[in-house]
Amino acid sequence: MTEIRKVAVLGTGVLGSQIAFQSAYTGFEVVAYDINDESLQKARLRLAALVETYRKEVTGAADLQADTMGRIILTSDLAAAVADADLVIEAVPEVLAIKQALYEKLARLAPSDTILATNSSTLLPSDLKDFTGRPDRFLALHFANNIWKFNTAEVMGTPETDPAVIDTILKFASDIGMVPIPIRREKAGYVLNSLLVPLLNAAAELAEGGYANPHDVDKVWRIATGAPMGPFQIYDMIGLNTPYNILSHGDKHARSLAAWLKENYIDKGKLGIASGEGFYSYKPAD
Amino acid sequence: MTEIRKVAVLGTGVLGSQIAFQSAYTGFEVVAYDINDESLQKARLRLAALVETYRKEVTGAADLQADTMGRIILTSDLAAAVADADLVIEAVPEVLAIKQALYEKLARLAPSDTILATNSSTLLPSDLKDFTGRPDRFLALHFANNIWKFNTAEVMGTPETDPAVIDTILKFASDIGMVPIPIRREKAGYVLNSLLVPLLNAAAELAEGGYANPHDVDKVWRIATGAPMGPFQIYDMIGLNTPYNILSHGDKHARSLAAWLKENYIDKGKLGIASGEGFYSYKPAD
Repeated sequence: MTEIRKVAVLGTGVLGSQIAFQSAYTGFEVVAYDINDESLQKARLRLAALVETYRKEVTGAADLQADTMGRIILTSDLAAAVADADLVIEAVPEVLAIKQALYEKLARLAPSDTILATNSSTLLPSDLKDFTGRPDRFLALHFANNIWKFNTAEVMGTPETDPAVIDTILKFASDIGMVPIPIRREKAGYVLNSLLVPLLNAAAELAEGGYANPHDVDKVWRIATGAPMGPFQIYDMIGLNTPYNILSHGDKHARSLAAWLKENYIDKGKLGIASGEGFYSYKPAD
Repeated sequence: MTEIRKVAVLGTGVLGSQIAFQSAYTGFEVVAYDINDESLQKARLRLAALVETYRKEVTGAADLQADTMGRIILTSDLAAAVADADLVIEAVPEVLAIKQALYEKLARLAPSDTILATNSSTLLPSDLKDFTGRPDRFLALHFANNIWKFNTAEVMGTPETDPAVIDTILKFASDIGMVPIPIRREKAGYVLNSLLVPLLNAAAELAEGGYANPHDVDKVWRIATGAPMGPFQIYDMIGLNTPYNILSHGDKHARSLAAWLKENYIDKGKLGIASGEGFYSYKPAD
């Protein structure tokens, strides 16, 4: 099994920064790459914010941040970033053309035994494997937002991925404090969205159809399952735009749910927790 | 608004006994009816067991059981049971012919202003209203098993139900310690099963399709949503026979999930918590 010591994280957006920070926090040497100085400056702010977040939310994290930051190198030089990486985790925007162009460069720039992993939520690894120059050493490694709390790492190869590479990445995921979840066949939405989307759609149907209001739906779910959040609280946490985008690309029934979300919530600026209101109000009392 | 003081509970099975006990526990005068002495003897045992359960699981219940039992009359005389009931809650077996015959008797025996409520899980109140002799005073009042813990009461009328009757029953539900959930249009499965069935089906699809194993699916769900149980733990809690029966009456895809449940679990005696094993083992260690 390949030993992973050096990790390159490509893309320093919300999740890329978290992956870089968590990997460094757990002792790995990390190079975080983004396309220009402006993006890297944003990455510095994101990493600095993560220091504070980990201090507050991660047990035992109080004294470790100086070390952590010392293990992260930021660069806009792709060749340097991947030159001696054992593992490259790609977390660039969810646009096929951007990812394709990047993998075509990596095929040349990364050593032939470097493992490449995509964090893509919406593409399957089979959509990307032919650009990587090493389909046997390519797979998906999918994190959830707020990685320090929601610490699942879904690991999904293509039929061409070497099983030993999958084992290596399952171990790496565990080494950086994740709960590794092997997905044995490619599946859009991985495990989480394959479960969450039907639940959220069913909840929207109940409210859109006038059967029950969102707060009552949530009450039933919380009481019956012991869950801390009902489906409409989950909508608010995710933000309504993402489910809206998924539903608007669905069948006629899905599109009617999308229209309901748009007219009653999104068009009124009720986008969820981030906007201060969604199905619930999060505004401070006057 | 009608004031509810006297309640008749028809049917003293698992849920009927709980409804009778909870109503008496919260101060209502209850008559519990069943068809013969043998059934009533079983009801006595169920009620006695509930005394113990409430002592253990319900805060403040330690001293109240003598009172509670004193407020419950058991009888196999239907006419006497409903003669001066303000509310009749029907919890007899889920067989249309049985319920129909009962409502035809109630139409004659219960005072014309007595409200009739069905606890049916699988029938809509519209399926029964024409037998009641009072469609304006008839609705569904649906409880969950382990009423003292899972205290939702879904309240669902037909288009003919008087809105004042719905309000009366919402208040009654609250008065007996339930969280009343108004369902404004008839919906098979009420709120809970309308949400739960799609989630459980999606989970079965992931496992049946070989994408991920049940324990990993549960892990993702628990971590991502903070829920105490993943979908396969919920299967085990419900028992696999109920989802199997629902799936076997579904479309081709549902029937293939039913076959998977049967071959891999039900046929091997893995029925869930009640049988000691389902997707998880509940057997004590050797």
